Amino acid sequence: MSKYAIGIDYGTLSARALVCEIGTGREVGEAVYEYRHAVMDERLPDGTRLKPDWALEHPDDYLEALCTCVPQAVKNAGVAKEDVIGVGIDFTACSLVPVDKNGDAMCKKYPSEPHAYVKLWKHHAAQAQANRLNEIASQRGEKWLARYGGKISSEWMFPKIWQMIDEAPWLYDETDRFMEAGDWVVMQMTGNETRNSCMAGYKAIWNKREGYPSKEFLKACHPKLENVVEEKLGPVSPIGSKAGGLTPKMAELMGLMPGTAVAVSNVDAHVSLPAAGLTEKGSMLMIMGTSTCHIMLGDEERIVPGMCGVVEDGVIPGLMGYEAGQSCVGDHFNWFVDNCFPANYAEKAKALGMNAHQYLTSLCENKKPGETGLLALDWWNGNRSVLVDVDLTGMMLGMTLTTAPEDIYRALIEATAYGTRMIIDTFEENGVKVDKLYACGGISQKNPFLMQVYADVLKREIRIARSTQTPALGSAMFGAVAAGKAAGGYDRIEDAAAEMGGTLPVVYRPDAQRAEIYEKLYQEYKLLHDYFGRGANDVMKRLKDIKKAQSN
Amino acid sequence: MSKYAIGIDYGTLSARALVCEIGTGREVGEAVYEYRHAVMDERLPDGTRLKPDWALEHPDDYLEALCTCVPQAVKNAGVAKEDVIGVGIDFTACSLVPVDKNGDAMCKKYPSEPHAYVKLWKHHAAQAQANRLNEIASQRGEKWLARYGGKISSEWMFPKIWQMIDEAPWLYDETDRFMEAGDWVVMQMTGNETRNSCMAGYKAIWNKREGYPSKEFLKACHPKLENVVEEKLGPVSPIGSKAGGLTPKMAELMGLMPGTAVAVSNVDAHVSLPAAGLTEKGSMLMIMGTSTCHIMLGDEERIVPGMCGVVEDGVIPGLMGYEAGQSCVGDHFNWFVDNCFPANYAEKAKALGMNAHQYLTSLCENKKPGETGLLALDWWNGNRSVLVDVDLTGMMLGMTLTTAPEDIYRALIEATAYGTRMIIDTFEENGVKVDKLYACGGISQKNPFLMQVYADVLKREIRIARSTQTPALGSAMFGAVAAGKAAGGYDRIEDAAAEMGGTLPVVYRPDAQRAEIYEKLYQEYKLLHDYFGRGANDVMKRLKDIKKAQSN
Repeated sequence: MSKYAIGIDYGTLSARALVCEIGTGREVGEAVYEYRHAVMDERLPDGTRLKPDWALEHPDDYLEALCTCVPQAVKNAGVAKEDVIGVGIDFTACSLVPVDKNGDAMCKKYPSEPHAYVKLWKHHAAQAQANRLNEIASQRGEKWLARYGGKISSEWMFPKIWQMIDEAPWLYDETDRFMEAGDWVVMQMTGNETRNSCMAGYKAIWNKREGYPSKEFLKACHPKLENVVEEKLGPVSPIGSKAGGLTPKMAELMGLMPGTAVAVSNVDAHVSLPAAGLTEKGSMLMIMGTSTCHIMLGDEERIVPGMCGVVEDGVIPGLMGYEAGQSCVGDHFNWFVDNCFPANYAEKAKALGMNAHQYLTSLCENKKPGETGLLALDWWNGNRSVLVDVDLTGMMLGMTLTTAPEDIYRALIEATAYGTRMIIDTFEENGVKVDKLYACGGISQKNPFLMQVYADVLKREIRIARSTQTPALGSAMFGAVAAGKAAGGYDRIEDAAAEMGGTLPVVYRPDAQRAEIYEKLYQEYKLLHDYFGRGANDVMKRLKDIKKAQSN
Repeated sequence: MSKYAIGIDYGTLSARALVCEIGTGREVGEAVYEYRHAVMDERLPDGTRLKPDWALEHPDDYLEALCTCVPQAVKNAGVAKEDVIGVGIDFTACSLVPVDKNGDAMCKKYPSEPHAYVKLWKHHAAQAQANRLNEIASQRGEKWLARYGGKISSEWMFPKIWQMIDEAPWLYDETDRFMEAGDWVVMQMTGNETRNSCMAGYKAIWNKREGYPSKEFLKACHPKLENVVEEKLGPVSPIGSKAGGLTPKMAELMGLMPGTAVAVSNVDAHVSLPAAGLTEKGSMLMIMGTSTCHIMLGDEERIVPGMCGVVEDGVIPGLMGYEAGQSCVGDHFNWFVDNCFPANYAEKAKALGMNAHQYLTSLCENKKPGETGLLALDWWNGNRSVLVDVDLTGMMLGMTLTTAPEDIYRALIEATAYGTRMIIDTFEENGVKVDKLYACGGISQKNPFLMQVYADVLKREIRIARSTQTPALGSAMFGAVAAGKAAGGYDRIEDAAAEMGGTLPVVYRPDAQRAEIYEKLYQEYKLLHDYFGRGANDVMKRLKDIKKAQSN
């Protein structure tokens, strides 16, 4: 008799529940729930207007997801609830919930107060606080700053809390605790308050050995922050821990058995590694979508310039999890198709039954490296790693009157590959060796040409995760670990990964001739990357300043 | 009773005859003839294959034009042939005709020999010869090289002659003389062989005081070239001269009176100045089309880096005519529309009854300078002035995920304006003052927004030529000068320009606020112009080399 675990992947607009067979990873049923309130970036449910750069969510949506898509996925799978032994979830982060003594989100009591809602990961209204925090950290020489590429993002926890202190101090005083939405959902399921090491490490400056930033630092930021850790946060549990069992009430709502094991929460990118079968040091997974997240396993803590974070127990217990990122990957290609895909191409693509991406790829894949004559910097959305600079913008050169749309499309693909090469080289130059390279996410399965370009540019073999739902599968695996071997699950995530995770048979191998040309082109990329990105010519920033001034 | 002059503008694919009223410049009739053989760049009429980069024309087409569109234009005008007192023509140059002792083109005798046809201005197969010529001129320190921006183009006369020596030496020996097609057509009309100072000066390294390059130089190029000037060229007549009167035979074919005065030939861009009313030093005319040609009048010979040529009597008798150029202006906008105009924009434009250019302009003209955040180098077709480098390519930066097609379109417009600013600044820095600025050509009348951008970027008033056919009008004016005042025409082109030429009432005046922002943006353009164009980073050339190697 098979046993099953459920992984729930909470995205920005919807949650997906996936029922997976333990022992094989077979995905036997799934269901999706779209959040009723979606992202609130203009007004609250009662009509209260939000300021620019705000992005909130309603915590009720997360619970409704549990009660709708979990039973539906189990039904679709056709499995008995008795055979579902574990549940794991992954969530966007930092998505911050202020809660009261009962664990209810503060928006229940204050539905007209924006600060009482969930500040979604992409809430960007705490930039002023982030700037001040970085300044103070830098002045004080805070050691942890280097672990985050030298810059704390406005998307992370402390800037978001600080924004509340600045703008709604009464609510800060009344808030009992701050929780990541992922941890909050786990608390709703189990009745136990846990905080997972992945979110705490990557989004709240927490370190296994050193804990959170010091009281002195926090006080220097704002007097009210001095005691925030002991008063409004809590202890951190490593990834792979069990948070508890489903409460009878939640079990009934979710259509599962009371006491079903629930894992501590996790982040979508990070939870994908075991789904691809990766649990060993030296492995890097590229989670490729609109942007790319690079998660890398190592066994020593090294400082790598421009990384988003290095966290012990952040991805796999006992290992260092490094995170790096490219802010714009699929977004480049989508931008081009949305803005520069000509009418006659659209007609031809339609006649061939292809979408724009397929058609452009079909045209450019027969060219040789360098044949377009184009070179681009992949900075349409700034540069996260390795420059950590949101004010950089896109660049392309080499255009002539015979440059065709597919040439530009190919140049954008190549630019993202060069960006990845820069990240991998930076890891290796700083002592973190990348032995094996993997990819997952839509692009990795949909565009073999792109993956071959990456293999040629990176001069490395690339393997692709088998599952198209790596976050949900990874979450299910952590659910199986929470259940434990005795209950039919696993005692270690490594064991779950070995049986339930894995890659497709295809391997993208670099071609020596193409790699040789790409090596030359990458050197050109690097020259321009450093010229525009490291201060020799800050034209991009000056143009942005002028643009900002002129847009008012 | 009004008198009339006819101007014939010989373009690349057709000729246009325009009947103009003397005293007013009123354009009373016109007709167009499309060349039967068009441009021959793949094969000769008998099927003989041409090599790449060749571009030939058939001289019969030029004579057919005289016999068809001149009578038609006169008929359309409804004027009596007795009232047509003068004819002037302008021609593309250098378009080289090898002729025999009788003045017939050599292709009459050798219809299967490519070298026996007219090598059109855009025949690019003499690049090897041009390269050697430049090398030798540079080694010998030929003084005239500086008058041509340091580089002789493969499009000009000596490389084209030299190509024949290299590839068909027997034909060179048999060729009696080499003529510009414009001069050849004038010879057909009048029976007199003349060579005009405009074409000789700009395309054949001729100088009023120094003549053609020395025998020593020409011999150093190729022994057979040593005596080419005395044997196969001939004396040069200043612009504004009379070549002769129509022969009875040609008068009959053209439907005009025998003896009608014919002016020496001219070049389309240069002949446009009097049509815009310009005959004084300090005036610059921008002839704006797919590319832009800048013709500038001065009273002293100065060396201006990157100019295409400075010729005494080249444009207006008694003045120095400077020529500079931007290789790609309208071509940029056409490239964008052909390659990057999205389907949904095409639909909206259609619904509004606009073409793509009008629609894009309507969207971008409401933005403020700098609001797009974009900056481009206008080098899609290399850079003529001031860098004289065909291997430079286009560049754009500042793109973000919110960059729209109209932003790119606007950036391309602005880039061409910055390119013009670079040219004007270079003239002034080298002692040639630009007092007044004028424009003519399709774009100047069709796109007021573009002209306003130019005024703001250049911080100068710009006036627009009244005529939409400035070359044909200018040629008619030279025809009226050839006729002379006694016959009802003029004795000087200045007098013709004063009465028949002129500008529209509109004046584009710079706006101080916009000009201030554009000054900042131009400084950014200049920084990148010099970085990519003056050797700091030759990435564009290296990419072109790789492209060339990979395209084979």
